[in-house]
Amino acid sequence: AECHVVTAIGDKLLDIHVLAKAGLLKQFGLDVSETIFCQPYLNPLLATGRKGLRALRDILQYLLNIEHDALSGQERLCSQAFSPLAEAKMKMPVKVGDYTDFYSSIEHATNVGKMFRDPDNALLQNWRHIPIGYHGRASSIVASDTPVHRPKGQILQDDGKTPVYAPTKKLDFELEMAFITCEATAIGDNIPVSSADDYIAGCMLFNDWSARDIQRWEYVPLGPFMGKNFASSVSPWLVTMDALAPFAVAGPEQHPPVLPYLQTKGNNNYDVALEVALAPDGQQFTTLAQSNFKHMYWNMKQQLAHQASNGCNIRVGDLYASGTISGQTPDSYGSLLELSWNGTRPITLDDGSIRHFIEDGDTVRMQAYATNRDFRISFGKIETKILPSK
Amino acid sequence: AECHVVTAIGDKLLDIHVLAKAGLLKQFGLDVSETIFCQPYLNPLLATGRKGLRALRDILQYLLNIEHDALSGQERLCSQAFSPLAEAKMKMPVKVGDYTDFYSSIEHATNVGKMFRDPDNALLQNWRHIPIGYHGRASSIVASDTPVHRPKGQILQDDGKTPVYAPTKKLDFELEMAFITCEATAIGDNIPVSSADDYIAGCMLFNDWSARDIQRWEYVPLGPFMGKNFASSVSPWLVTMDALAPFAVAGPEQHPPVLPYLQTKGNNNYDVALEVALAPDGQQFTTLAQSNFKHMYWNMKQQLAHQASNGCNIRVGDLYASGTISGQTPDSYGSLLELSWNGTRPITLDDGSIRHFIEDGDTVRMQAYATNRDFRISFGKIETKILPSK
Repeated sequence: AECHVVTAIGDKLLDIHVLAKAGLLKQFGLDVSETIFCQPYLNPLLATGRKGLRALRDILQYLLNIEHDALSGQERLCSQAFSPLAEAKMKMPVKVGDYTDFYSSIEHATNVGKMFRDPDNALLQNWRHIPIGYHGRASSIVASDTPVHRPKGQILQDDGKTPVYAPTKKLDFELEMAFITCEATAIGDNIPVSSADDYIAGCMLFNDWSARDIQRWEYVPLGPFMGKNFASSVSPWLVTMDALAPFAVAGPEQHPPVLPYLQTKGNNNYDVALEVALAPDGQQFTTLAQSNFKHMYWNMKQQLAHQASNGCNIRVGDLYASGTISGQTPDSYGSLLELSWNGTRPITLDDGSIRHFIEDGDTVRMQAYATNRDFRISFGKIETKILPSK
Repeated sequence: AECHVVTAIGDKLLDIHVLAKAGLLKQFGLDVSETIFCQPYLNPLLATGRKGLRALRDILQYLLNIEHDALSGQERLCSQAFSPLAEAKMKMPVKVGDYTDFYSSIEHATNVGKMFRDPDNALLQNWRHIPIGYHGRASSIVASDTPVHRPKGQILQDDGKTPVYAPTKKLDFELEMAFITCEATAIGDNIPVSSADDYIAGCMLFNDWSARDIQRWEYVPLGPFMGKNFASSVSPWLVTMDALAPFAVAGPEQHPPVLPYLQTKGNNNYDVALEVALAPDGQQFTTLAQSNFKHMYWNMKQQLAHQASNGCNIRVGDLYASGTISGQTPDSYGSLLELSWNGTRPITLDDGSIRHFIEDGDTVRMQAYATNRDFRISFGKIETKILPSK
């Protein structure tokens, strides 16, 4: 089946390929090949950069503005261009080159440090200086509605001596946001943090699935590997930075001051409400946590400037995830690891069942939206059913 | 410029695209499109799998066998197909999807553990159970003859408190081999270790550039990131597993026994001589170390079976590097970190100059070959000049 680039307008989809084929984009000054809207991935559109994405957005806003009457008398075009959102089959929107997962929520890093290291000295020495991150697996990033099998892996038994190869008993989600790049650098080049905006196309919801027991046994000294790379899930929508601009807010004060190559001014965080819910097989969803993207200690510009600070080259379509976004209160923690405090505080769902970690048949749903007096932007959702181990 | 798939025959190149266009491959039963030999990357050829690669190899061996006289009277074809190796411009041979770096030399892991952890208990508890690895950056893998700028990054000062952003003072190489995949799996599927061979196309030399001071400050708890991702270098030749088969040898005994999903029998290591040399600007090369691929504790089948053991999907063109390959004696260590014992044992080069780590203007050269009474297979070399920080 042919894949088209679309945008969501309420409960409708607007097919941009139809507009492009009708010459409407060119008519309003966007001179790009219509083929970039008829592709399996957004990458060719992303490669038009911030300028191209903004021009497209401006045209769509113009066309959809009733006062401009631009689509009047175009019934046939409109009937082709608009279709019900509910009938669409959404796909993985971006062909991801490299995927980095940061660890940029101070509340999350502190919670993990309290649990597994020193409760009185939870944050490692490097954390306030470096937007800590690691490289993840790009091949296993999947879109919403793609079920995930419970992974097997090496797990250390309770004797503390013998590992077994078995299905994880500590399957977890991580509530994250991710940004996608729309501009490339050459190897050896840096990105000044003041220019990092030019490289960031927009954001998506991101679920960094984690198997805590596998991760725990493998991660010293080289970091997370098989505990993470079996799957990550993204929302099918990319919300552009231009759409997010009205929701920019100041981030937390960074103390001690960060090094000059990471210093940003102004509003670089985004007020995006996040929610994660879980439904046992055939049951209703119970909201597990509500968090907000604005909590991030390290902002996206800092993450990208850091990623390029050693000359590592950026490509169009890279994905940079935030790390688990936890707030300060226990009802805002972005993982079951934190919500159940590594399984020591059972969670009661609305149907009365108990969870420490995710069970087979559970569906995890993440949602995100930004809203103000004037409008509301939805990131859509990630809904993933967990199937038993293969 | 058009890129062709070639093979090296002594000091000549054989252009396989010329043979394909002349119908010679089809004539001998290899029914693939000639376009796969006229591509910027080997990936379409790799996608023909072990069978396709073997069939191509068989045809080439037949054609080149003087007794078969297959190319006699084909002067014009031969003059098009053969050209001097020295005149070729070699490129990055594979478009790498995901890149994993393992840590599979017990001598290397032990040396690092002695240096930075407990000299009496150097190997971590998980090491003999898991082929430890981490995800690296695919975008910054470059071919031989691509110079690399000394990376900058965050480095903790001697006071142990304040980081600076500065050029690394501990730039290092890591002498590694890497294998490339030629078969894909679906997400959720495993690769039985007994079938792992089917997925492995062949091997290349690999240099995992490392900035030890950047790595040291960042790597807890999520592993190597900016200390590694500024560049990795590969040899431009892929040596197929069929070509390597005569050099298969038994690996070291694994004790304690590994879990069943990792158990292999027979000869799964390869006797490939490795060498690394360094030349200061305008000077001759001094050999720094000679090692051998046969030293690996974990073999390639085990690495790949482990990578897929949680359902992580494999793509054609993934790159899996071995980790630094060190032998037991100090003249076989595969990194300056080990050779200079973290800078405490200066190395004297043939021209009398001293090295602790790599200096600007130095060229690092890695070479690999397999040889027996009958023939010699070269992996070519990786030659990389280090330029000052940008």
